[in-house]
Amino acid sequence: MTQNHLPGMESSAISVLKRAVELDQSGRFLESLVCYQEGIQLLIDIQKAVNDDSKRGHYREKIKGYMDRAEHIKAHVNQMKEEGKYHEQVRIAEDAIGYSYEAIFKPYISGALTEVWVEDPYIRHTHQLYNFLRFCEMLLKASCKVKTIHLLTSPDDVDVGQQTSSMAELTQSLSAHGVTLDLQYSTTIHDREIRFDNGWIIKIGRGLDYFKRPKGRFSIGYCDYDLRQCHKTTVDIFHKKHTKTL
Amino acid sequence: MTQNHLPGMESSAISVLKRAVELDQSGRFLESLVCYQEGIQLLIDIQKAVNDDSKRGHYREKIKGYMDRAEHIKAHVNQMKEEGKYHEQVRIAEDAIGYSYEAIFKPYISGALTEVWVEDPYIRHTHQLYNFLRFCEMLLKASCKVKTIHLLTSPDDVDVGQQTSSMAELTQSLSAHGVTLDLQYSTTIHDREIRFDNGWIIKIGRGLDYFKRPKGRFSIGYCDYDLRQCHKTTVDIFHKKHTKTL
Repeated sequence: MTQNHLPGMESSAISVLKRAVELDQSGRFLESLVCYQEGIQLLIDIQKAVNDDSKRGHYREKIKGYMDRAEHIKAHVNQMKEEGKYHEQVRIAEDAIGYSYEAIFKPYISGALTEVWVEDPYIRHTHQLYNFLRFCEMLLKASCKVKTIHLLTSPDDVDVGQQTSSMAELTQSLSAHGVTLDLQYSTTIHDREIRFDNGWIIKIGRGLDYFKRPKGRFSIGYCDYDLRQCHKTTVDIFHKKHTKTL
Repeated sequence: MTQNHLPGMESSAISVLKRAVELDQSGRFLESLVCYQEGIQLLIDIQKAVNDDSKRGHYREKIKGYMDRAEHIKAHVNQMKEEGKYHEQVRIAEDAIGYSYEAIFKPYISGALTEVWVEDPYIRHTHQLYNFLRFCEMLLKASCKVKTIHLLTSPDDVDVGQQTSSMAELTQSLSAHGVTLDLQYSTTIHDREIRFDNGWIIKIGRGLDYFKRPKGRFSIGYCDYDLRQCHKTTVDIFHKKHTKTL
């Protein structure tokens, strides 16, 4: 770490820690933890690279303060999980960006995650089939060992051929990656819910289909969903201690 | 951090540190640093969560060892940069995965990066235009403040209309994100090179076009380039201390 990187790193640290505090204050604890940890790591790197003793002391104090807050949040979250009372809410505003599936789900993915249930009536049109593909890609890339993905959706009454053939292709592709896709159709399903076997339940008001159409085919956000604008929707996160009974 | 997360975290730490050592041994120092830092952070988290004193001591030793190695690499890299002798090579094997633009370029992006030059004769067919869009998205998302992207490419002699219209759309979209696209065409260009104004020069043998066609439109890796198979190619990375003279 050279001295001339320090101003850039410091502004990164300030911005990520500001975000951590905002998330913390609005009760989005697991997301705030991710930001606190990132910010603390940046401060540790800066502190190591700084030569001035009083400045190092200043950073050490800051680091300690944020670490204490992060530990406190962890204890609080764990207690709520133990009591089965955990509930967190993310409100995605109209036209907001920064809400890729990775951004939404990452805080709830752990090494213990092996099985995922998706209930979403609208995995049928091309863009919705791609939503589900992206969701599967996100799980494959995350630091977990997902073995089975269950999808319960409704059959497409207009073009069932497209839905069936793309699901067959995805099933085969997932199988080549060691993951089983258990696909079921229901004509009566209307709830949207994603459940993880590590206990987390994530309910998105619009299901996986909360991204806006891009401005154009060659516009920023066409490929990267972190840069894609969203429809207004609410994400509710719960924790069930014993998910085996789900 | 609860106790039941520890085995998962430990296996993550082992795998990322194994990767760090491999990269280190093959001279890919900046990439190995990213892995060392990730692995050290995991070990720190584990050490904090462990109750047994002798186990904590064991982790403390491990952390110290890896930190020493990371510091040593940083010093070595900085010295080579000072002397203008830095050269690192990444060999992407046929059919390898894990080489999205983010994976390749992230180690060389810093807060000091504001201007990027791309020379690539083949940004003309649809998939190549999307490659360049993804490269721009990656820069927008990275922790840097890119203000100008220069692209020097060759005009498409078959369908110049598609190239011109998609570049116009991308220029407008980047401009809405506060980034200027400076686009120039040349019929004689054949070298491929990407230069950053923080001093890094990255030469990819095949330019940005080193990804294979996906197996199908609904296969894993269609949307996420980290999961897309690559053609065999070599990435050479150099550092010029004074890039203003480029």
